[in-house]
Amino acid sequence: MAPPPAAAAAEAEGEEVTNRQVILKLYVTGYPTVDDMEVVTGTVRLALPPGSTTAILVKNLYLSCDPYMRTRMTRHADDPNFVPDYVPGKVVLSAHPDFKPGDFLWGVTGWEEYSLIPNPVLCNKINHREFPLSYYTGVLGVPGLTAYAGLFEVAKAKKGEYVFVSAAAGAVGQIVGQLAMLTGCYVVGSAGSDEKVNLLKTKFGFDDAFNYKEEADLNAALKRCFPEGIDVYFDNVGGATLDAVLRRMRPRGRVAVCGQVSQYNLERPYGVDLFQLVGKHIRMEGFLVSEYGGEYYRRFEEEMARHLREGKVVCVEDIVEGIDAAPAALVGLFAGRNVGKQVVAIARE
Amino acid sequence: MAPPPAAAAAEAEGEEVTNRQVILKLYVTGYPTVDDMEVVTGTVRLALPPGSTTAILVKNLYLSCDPYMRTRMTRHADDPNFVPDYVPGKVVLSAHPDFKPGDFLWGVTGWEEYSLIPNPVLCNKINHREFPLSYYTGVLGVPGLTAYAGLFEVAKAKKGEYVFVSAAAGAVGQIVGQLAMLTGCYVVGSAGSDEKVNLLKTKFGFDDAFNYKEEADLNAALKRCFPEGIDVYFDNVGGATLDAVLRRMRPRGRVAVCGQVSQYNLERPYGVDLFQLVGKHIRMEGFLVSEYGGEYYRRFEEEMARHLREGKVVCVEDIVEGIDAAPAALVGLFAGRNVGKQVVAIARE
Repeated sequence: MAPPPAAAAAEAEGEEVTNRQVILKLYVTGYPTVDDMEVVTGTVRLALPPGSTTAILVKNLYLSCDPYMRTRMTRHADDPNFVPDYVPGKVVLSAHPDFKPGDFLWGVTGWEEYSLIPNPVLCNKINHREFPLSYYTGVLGVPGLTAYAGLFEVAKAKKGEYVFVSAAAGAVGQIVGQLAMLTGCYVVGSAGSDEKVNLLKTKFGFDDAFNYKEEADLNAALKRCFPEGIDVYFDNVGGATLDAVLRRMRPRGRVAVCGQVSQYNLERPYGVDLFQLVGKHIRMEGFLVSEYGGEYYRRFEEEMARHLREGKVVCVEDIVEGIDAAPAALVGLFAGRNVGKQVVAIARE
Repeated sequence: MAPPPAAAAAEAEGEEVTNRQVILKLYVTGYPTVDDMEVVTGTVRLALPPGSTTAILVKNLYLSCDPYMRTRMTRHADDPNFVPDYVPGKVVLSAHPDFKPGDFLWGVTGWEEYSLIPNPVLCNKINHREFPLSYYTGVLGVPGLTAYAGLFEVAKAKKGEYVFVSAAAGAVGQIVGQLAMLTGCYVVGSAGSDEKVNLLKTKFGFDDAFNYKEEADLNAALKRCFPEGIDVYFDNVGGATLDAVLRRMRPRGRVAVCGQVSQYNLERPYGVDLFQLVGKHIRMEGFLVSEYGGEYYRRFEEEMARHLREGKVVCVEDIVEGIDAAPAALVGLFAGRNVGKQVVAIARE
């Protein structure tokens, strides 16, 4: 899967080439559909702005599809969009001293074939070419870092604690569960199909897992899985699951609020009983992965690369081919169609 | 108002006397009414269990009326009631080495004239008789301690921060606001009548205040009062107010969840948009005042007594007379009829 490391860029400088892009046509209410997006064919000149000392031109290779993107498809007057997309790609042209043509990087670009980036402050060089490049959309990129920072910095999970993670087969959840197992926690995950539950128990080695769609009573499911209660909940979904978890938390329990995917397409949020926080001194804390960049990311990247080499962490990706498949892949997230990290391969190097 | 310190107990040991009590007749759904309670006349023998070395018999003087009591009026299979009532009273008989007849104490007794307490582990001696005894149901008791611990231990309010408190004229809110002012915070409170708002601005010296019932748009009200956003929210009410506050929080804002009085009488909780926690790394944390007893309470009591002596903290109480008035006083909390700390005086020493 990994492209040959030294493949030369085929593009000639100054040439104008087509640049296919995914465009959001309208702000979305409710569930997004493929009709909300359009794949258009534009052009890009393979050139940098004259005089720039920071710009780079990137050929994008793998687009990341993530649930939080739904929150960027609604207009919030007071809430500017807070996270762009993460994409591994290859530098085609560079005026920046830290990047040279042929370098591989991952970072914030766009849902398009080529991106001109005026200043790549949100891009990171890819240090571990021994893994598939697509891992930098997942276990070695933002989802992995999110799992790591949320579990250890926000929820402060410790050995011997009871940990629950929802959307556990997803890009973040699968890493949360494996990191918690490595820490010596008792780990249970929920997911939305028997195939995913099977993956959690076998591939990822969770202590237990359940299909939330087949549980008539979430409270009963959590009681069965956690007779002693829950110390840490890594929340990817919010809503009814969060509500049931709060009732099952142990004193001084912590909830790392990473996502609320069950809520993004609703007009009114689900009514969670927040009085549950009071009696057990529960802490709920949201976080953004962007707080944990720079040196923190580098340390994470090395630790995770070691886990991957030693086989202590594995990952499952769901890769579709071609930018035309991107809208359906994004929409599919909200129906739970992906199994593992959803990636769109738009070029193989 | 303070009874003479050495008034002798009129009761003769062994005598049987009437003991009027407030009884909850049925578990409550929705808003409680006075018909859910009954004042009955029982008897109590003025005697201690033979052989006990810990029991005390207490004559109750002031009953505390608090919103959390509503949560004890509903049966929760999995959630045992977590806080009993706090009452200042006077020791009539004692087998306990730390209490002697005539001592004044406050603690967990009952809504009745006399309480036999097998072991007064949840009672504290009253050290500051220079203040009205009823202060030990408020500023020097549980509401004051709740305000203090919630603001400083949970929300960790610091000088220069923007602090919002709801139910700000209530027993806890009025102390929260004054402590935050003393810390050098900018403090705004909300309350449910113009009379209360006036009290906040004049008597308690809040920087600003508003009547939430007269604001068509809570988001606009908060934007007007906090153009720079909110760092700390001391939440007594939950629901729509909490939802609007989360939208107005600054990065790394903290919510101390003390109560959710707008929610106790609802069948389904209000849907608060918890995704707001994510983008700004907001921490919401519940707490119970019972975590902050013992030595912590003693330090608080001395600090608060100093503030009261120096006139830096004032308090407003709403005292009704007689145990027959207790049910209506409790019910009135949920209509916001009380102005300040609701107390029921059942004996004046």
